Amino acid sequence: MAFNIGLLGLGTVGTSTAEILLDTAGRNSLLKEIIIKQVGVSSLDKPRKVQFPSGVMTTDLEGIVNDPDIDIVVELLGGLEPARSLILQAIANGKHVVTANKAVIARYGDEIYTAANKTKVYVLLEAAVGGGIPIIKPLKQSLGVNRIKRVTGIVNGTTNYILTEMSANGADFADVLAEAQKLGYAEADPTADIDGWDAADKIAILATIAFGERIKREEISCEGIRTINATDISYAEQLGFVIKLLAIAQSSKSDSLEVRVHPTLVPKEHPLASINDVYNAILVEGEPLGQVMFFGPGAGGGATASAVVSDIINIAGILKSSGKTTNLDPLLSCSHQHYASLTPTEEIETRFYVRFLCQDVPGVIGHLGTCFGEHQVSIESVVQIGFKEELAEIVVVTHNVQEGNFRKALAEIKDLEAIDSIPNIIRVL
Amino acid sequence: MAFNIGLLGLGTVGTSTAEILLDTAGRNSLLKEIIIKQVGVSSLDKPRKVQFPSGVMTTDLEGIVNDPDIDIVVELLGGLEPARSLILQAIANGKHVVTANKAVIARYGDEIYTAANKTKVYVLLEAAVGGGIPIIKPLKQSLGVNRIKRVTGIVNGTTNYILTEMSANGADFADVLAEAQKLGYAEADPTADIDGWDAADKIAILATIAFGERIKREEISCEGIRTINATDISYAEQLGFVIKLLAIAQSSKSDSLEVRVHPTLVPKEHPLASINDVYNAILVEGEPLGQVMFFGPGAGGGATASAVVSDIINIAGILKSSGKTTNLDPLLSCSHQHYASLTPTEEIETRFYVRFLCQDVPGVIGHLGTCFGEHQVSIESVVQIGFKEELAEIVVVTHNVQEGNFRKALAEIKDLEAIDSIPNIIRVL
Repeated sequence: MAFNIGLLGLGTVGTSTAEILLDTAGRNSLLKEIIIKQVGVSSLDKPRKVQFPSGVMTTDLEGIVNDPDIDIVVELLGGLEPARSLILQAIANGKHVVTANKAVIARYGDEIYTAANKTKVYVLLEAAVGGGIPIIKPLKQSLGVNRIKRVTGIVNGTTNYILTEMSANGADFADVLAEAQKLGYAEADPTADIDGWDAADKIAILATIAFGERIKREEISCEGIRTINATDISYAEQLGFVIKLLAIAQSSKSDSLEVRVHPTLVPKEHPLASINDVYNAILVEGEPLGQVMFFGPGAGGGATASAVVSDIINIAGILKSSGKTTNLDPLLSCSHQHYASLTPTEEIETRFYVRFLCQDVPGVIGHLGTCFGEHQVSIESVVQIGFKEELAEIVVVTHNVQEGNFRKALAEIKDLEAIDSIPNIIRVL
Repeated sequence: MAFNIGLLGLGTVGTSTAEILLDTAGRNSLLKEIIIKQVGVSSLDKPRKVQFPSGVMTTDLEGIVNDPDIDIVVELLGGLEPARSLILQAIANGKHVVTANKAVIARYGDEIYTAANKTKVYVLLEAAVGGGIPIIKPLKQSLGVNRIKRVTGIVNGTTNYILTEMSANGADFADVLAEAQKLGYAEADPTADIDGWDAADKIAILATIAFGERIKREEISCEGIRTINATDISYAEQLGFVIKLLAIAQSSKSDSLEVRVHPTLVPKEHPLASINDVYNAILVEGEPLGQVMFFGPGAGGGATASAVVSDIINIAGILKSSGKTTNLDPLLSCSHQHYASLTPTEEIETRFYVRFLCQDVPGVIGHLGTCFGEHQVSIESVVQIGFKEELAEIVVVTHNVQEGNFRKALAEIKDLEAIDSIPNIIRVL
């Protein structure tokens, strides 16, 4: 049996995907039954690392998704359009789809999966989150028998590299970002990574699978790492924490979901604390399972292609066993109908680290304590860490508090005469 | 659609499995379609944590595997017989099988999978390795598109707990074992765990899946942790290592497989070094993927039941989508026909840590160096660490060497007049 695939895009991941499919020795033998029928690119003249027989490469992307001989369309274009339209057209034509496109799925998952259920095709996306780490299929197929409590991920390699470097060398954000751009770990326009939007796309996808409810991408509270500096990293270190950009989805008491992305002080003994450099990790907590963690390369052509090709052979395996006219396996398809109600930010409970610069006058800590206390913000520790010019530097770590109460207390504290400024506020795991 | 399961065994894992299946709210909705039709136990009179309607529990285990209404037999008896015979009978009757029984699969996998392929049923065993960690399905369905180079696991919770405690408290093996038995982390007869046989069963299963070749269980070189003592743990620590019981399967230059279980000095910065207590982790390395690691609870009723139930719903999902008369999905079945040729121990290349007690006479280190050198054993470091009574204690760490050469050198060294004894030899990752 042979399965024809149409590859859309031949960038880094597309090239690595083709390399795996064209060099199958020593790999799963199902790969021998996969044929790259067409490869859609924007230009036929660019030099390429992989060579195809003449006629395979084409600039006619629509031709690929309309080609009746193609069984599986593999979308590796990235970006929203024409990726979204091509995926929908492939689905309408009864083709299965494999994609690495987190942005399209996070925004148009509803439209795409509704269409896929109608024509009974699979849309698999293992590569969209965590690069080469198998996380989507384990969540769908294995972990869902548990009551999932929380999914916590380091899902953006660029920011994890930057924070690791800042931590290791006491370096400043801007310098490390420049270095990361030079090394190819950060893009020329790094906004999507460092402002947390890439991580938000990914946690939207993970939350949808883990909790069985669709997520409105724009409702996710999202904070990036621009405000993190060497001072806070050093204070965090002294307090027993490292700073990581975490993407978190958890079920809330009020039957809603908390979904958020923000830099976080992570206790050093936590499994996610030792995930460094461009590596990703996703920690899943559920009942009765407890904690499981998946760790690996979150980006890179080869790792991401490993996930893409695994989706391709999963579809091939199903087609081989059951033919083409069956129902979808509910564990691999998406049947969520309704949207999750997300917990408003002010109702989310979390710990906070907050750094104050204040006049060195008696009673400041007392004032802080009173203001926090009046808003039910209970304090875990207060440390006067040092002096910055004439000002005393005080770091407060709270217990778990409602963010709304914390913000109200902070607004009052800002107005205290002794408070010069609040240089940083970071959530604590 | 409803699927009837017959549960064989109602011990810790069986009870937790039933608890998940009987309390489905907040879990994957496929669980609502699973019905526990029969539960086979050895005694109906024992008090049980879960209650079934009358007629569900039975002591007639054969009746369960012969019951035409049962779709999936879930074998959680443990041990070799009657587990093996019941599994084979269920398969012969066309029933799918889910098992947590690593011992049966590691020894009778050949017989069981040959039978399963004949009657076209699935035999899934996610719970057999790594407790609640999804590792079997990711290996089968995702990672196999890579050329797998190595699978390295901490797959026995009991020994990992003992080594962690010994490391943390400088305690001796016998004391920690007694404590572990009191806490229920080690069995009254701890042989299978501490001599490495349980880990050998598990690496046999992982190696078969990762490399697509059957493994003769009795050919696996297996060393337990009885010889590890506080002295070696402390020297390892000083040299930058922790000691872990590793199960390793890797492809060898000579087109054979190295499969082995032994205590190992693991560099502290290695991902497996920080896996402590009863936790398990499996590191998979492949091309082009790089390294991925799976971490979680390797034992315990709830975690193991999570894996068992995930297998049950995977089969239910397939039956729901494709009906009962189709071919097997090659990614979930087992089509290996031949046995791997295992690399003889003497040809395996590894680093060694070896501790000598010797007379404090000049030239001893020179003699050691000469003996090693004559057998192509290249030395990475020699440290004279201290004195024990009248004797000097010397620790040697070698580079990667052929084990055969190393053993020959050691035999000669033993005969040197200045050498009193060689208290321990441990492999180094």
